[in-house]
Amino acid sequence: MKRVFINQSLNYIGKKIKVAGWINSIRSHGKINFIDLRDKTGILQVFFEKDLKKEFNEEDVVEIVGTIQLRPKQNINPNLETGKIELRGEEILLLSKAKTLPFDLKNLNLSLPKLLDFRPLSLKNEKIKAIFRVEEVLIDAFRESLKKRGFFEFQAPTIVFSSTEGGAQLFEVNYYGKKAYLAQSPQLYKQILVSSFERVFTVCKAFRAEPSVTTRHLSEYISLDCEMGFIESWKDLLELCEEVVKEMVSKVAKECKKELSIFNVSLPNLKKRIPSLKLKEAQEIIFQRTGKDKRKNPDLDPEDEKEICDFAKEKWKSEFVFITHFPTEKRPFYTFEDPEDPNFTLSFDLLFRGLEIVTGGQRIHDYQMLISKMKRFGLDPKKFDFYLQAFKYGMPPEGGFAIGAERFVKQILNLENIREASLFPRDLERIDLRLSTFKSKKCQKD
Amino acid sequence: MKRVFINQSLNYIGKKIKVAGWINSIRSHGKINFIDLRDKTGILQVFFEKDLKKEFNEEDVVEIVGTIQLRPKQNINPNLETGKIELRGEEILLLSKAKTLPFDLKNLNLSLPKLLDFRPLSLKNEKIKAIFRVEEVLIDAFRESLKKRGFFEFQAPTIVFSSTEGGAQLFEVNYYGKKAYLAQSPQLYKQILVSSFERVFTVCKAFRAEPSVTTRHLSEYISLDCEMGFIESWKDLLELCEEVVKEMVSKVAKECKKELSIFNVSLPNLKKRIPSLKLKEAQEIIFQRTGKDKRKNPDLDPEDEKEICDFAKEKWKSEFVFITHFPTEKRPFYTFEDPEDPNFTLSFDLLFRGLEIVTGGQRIHDYQMLISKMKRFGLDPKKFDFYLQAFKYGMPPEGGFAIGAERFVKQILNLENIREASLFPRDLERIDLRLSTFKSKKCQKD
Repeated sequence: MKRVFINQSLNYIGKKIKVAGWINSIRSHGKINFIDLRDKTGILQVFFEKDLKKEFNEEDVVEIVGTIQLRPKQNINPNLETGKIELRGEEILLLSKAKTLPFDLKNLNLSLPKLLDFRPLSLKNEKIKAIFRVEEVLIDAFRESLKKRGFFEFQAPTIVFSSTEGGAQLFEVNYYGKKAYLAQSPQLYKQILVSSFERVFTVCKAFRAEPSVTTRHLSEYISLDCEMGFIESWKDLLELCEEVVKEMVSKVAKECKKELSIFNVSLPNLKKRIPSLKLKEAQEIIFQRTGKDKRKNPDLDPEDEKEICDFAKEKWKSEFVFITHFPTEKRPFYTFEDPEDPNFTLSFDLLFRGLEIVTGGQRIHDYQMLISKMKRFGLDPKKFDFYLQAFKYGMPPEGGFAIGAERFVKQILNLENIREASLFPRDLERIDLRLSTFKSKKCQKD
Repeated sequence: MKRVFINQSLNYIGKKIKVAGWINSIRSHGKINFIDLRDKTGILQVFFEKDLKKEFNEEDVVEIVGTIQLRPKQNINPNLETGKIELRGEEILLLSKAKTLPFDLKNLNLSLPKLLDFRPLSLKNEKIKAIFRVEEVLIDAFRESLKKRGFFEFQAPTIVFSSTEGGAQLFEVNYYGKKAYLAQSPQLYKQILVSSFERVFTVCKAFRAEPSVTTRHLSEYISLDCEMGFIESWKDLLELCEEVVKEMVSKVAKECKKELSIFNVSLPNLKKRIPSLKLKEAQEIIFQRTGKDKRKNPDLDPEDEKEICDFAKEKWKSEFVFITHFPTEKRPFYTFEDPEDPNFTLSFDLLFRGLEIVTGGQRIHDYQMLISKMKRFGLDPKKFDFYLQAFKYGMPPEGGFAIGAERFVKQILNLENIREASLFPRDLERIDLRLSTFKSKKCQKD
């Protein structure tokens, strides 16, 4: 007999079927016993006229054969997809025994570190699973949105031989006895590919050795990166970013109704255009509102991001806001300078509900200009020979952006900590287990 | 004026449009000048009644305004999608100047190392680009095929704290002063997720520090991994694998006609069931056919894989063949033993045109059995505490497989070396540049 998924059981009223899954709960009333059986598609009530409590526990994996029947009217459960039916159990077969659970899986009330110590187990919780369904849909939407616009998807490399942005925060890899690193971003590769594929994107991992623990940084995160050639102006990028982000939210709205209701959150209004402020304007507004003078800072800090999002919501009823024109000295060497004021760049961040979730901008596409900029930034163009090939042999005007997937999920679901939005978060303190339980690193001598 | 993509230009006969792209070639006949303009969608002939050869070179990036007109009959090019039209150029604007090319980009005749030294440039070649379009379609097909069957897509972690298979070939990462590694495979994570999501897959990177250079190994490769709970028998996995692989080939057949014709290759017949041989049977056949007695080997070597594929093609007219029942001692600890003969496992490889492209099998799902097996294999179960949680609290019978994306592409396009199927291949000798040009690794002291 072929197994029937629980959400399909409604089609089998009066018929004998086999279902399989985990015992979500078990209740005994003497002779009458109820099991709520859970599979990937839902929950089904099964009743047996024999005592099961001695033999079976929560999370045991079982296979049950029985007949689907309508419940008596007074027993209908409107909150359950299968609430008007139940399975009259005939046979039950144990597939896998579960040990007694160390905590109540259905009403999780654990600290985040504890939750992550028990990640394999806590992932069985419906609310936690919902986070990753939303993530899956967001990533799919990013992909669909760009494919529709003729973007080529590539798989960006992870092991690299130098830093993208000439910076710190690199993880070092022992690569056959040579020094290599984990990619901080696919930036240089997506630019290289613009010179052959014009429009490209990647769903990849990026790595930052963040020296401190915050609620918004991971050591390994999912970067949704795209890059587009033949832009007429950097505004094409703002427009593309707005469209892609809105299509992502739209798909979540359509496909994650259940998940959103578990978190009791609503999605932003997509009808409005996303407003835009220059960094200087944003800083002036923050000064006016709070009296805090950060007008000389090169970037917004987390407090500023919240403040300016509050402002955008009050003024434009928008939960998104673009911040543009970051200072040249603080953006990576490849960032295009504003012809009207070369101290600032044609770059942008997108803030959503108080947090930066996207960063992007136009890039320098002229070979000579790029080399001069590298030199000004103290970088050795010879080390970038590989990358520079793309510019030497004809690069169109181009730019792009990167969306932090976990950050977007965190903001949509109003999670407190970005670690909640990562299946297996890596940070200063943890790779699955806490680092304090690890051996120290020992390197071979050269 | 908005830019029109070249494959759309056929819709603008008699109209004035703007196109943009790279100068694929330029020919001067005195006053009459022709440019073949290339963008991501195709090639368009442009003609100008002024001399352009002094000003413009191959690979220059330009924007051209002109009027689309039908070509005189004798000038129609049946090999070009836009062969019956041309653009009468009016204005041409240089967007980006290209240096003189170091080799003929249209007739590449470089050694593989040279080709890879010039990867950013050589990727502009149509034949090389075609490889990665096929790869993109294969990966999409893998994803579609599994989504259709209710599999959840996750992003597997890259940084791990121990080896998956208790083995060597690990790249070491300096993780905040602790020893960590790059994942050899997402195996343990996909199993963990079966205990919550039942059916999962991932498109991820896997890393092997291969100690030698071969035509079929990369240090960083794309693994298409899936895992399924509630299998009735390991044959469910063979069946799933066959369906998924066939759907992948099918999509390539449908969407990559042009790419396949560039390589002048045909695809395997998908109507036949994929035949299956036990390792022992395969070895016996090889012995009969070649006289080489490898009947005590724990696996097939590359020569054997070719031989047994020849046999399958002759006997069953199949370019695919499953090899099953590899010896227990040589498969990882989590592999399920054959109840009929525990010296062998319910595991399989799928060979395609002489090369293993898939490996998979049923896994041990019983907690106690898994712990015993670990101990027998000399592994310390305490180090696998995190992984074991999934088994402790109810794991259904399960299994899965992994497809090597670059290998599949290599075999489809009949490439000589797997490096050709990787955009930016990493191996013993190269990360973009040749390693011989790198500094040696220096580690901090503990």
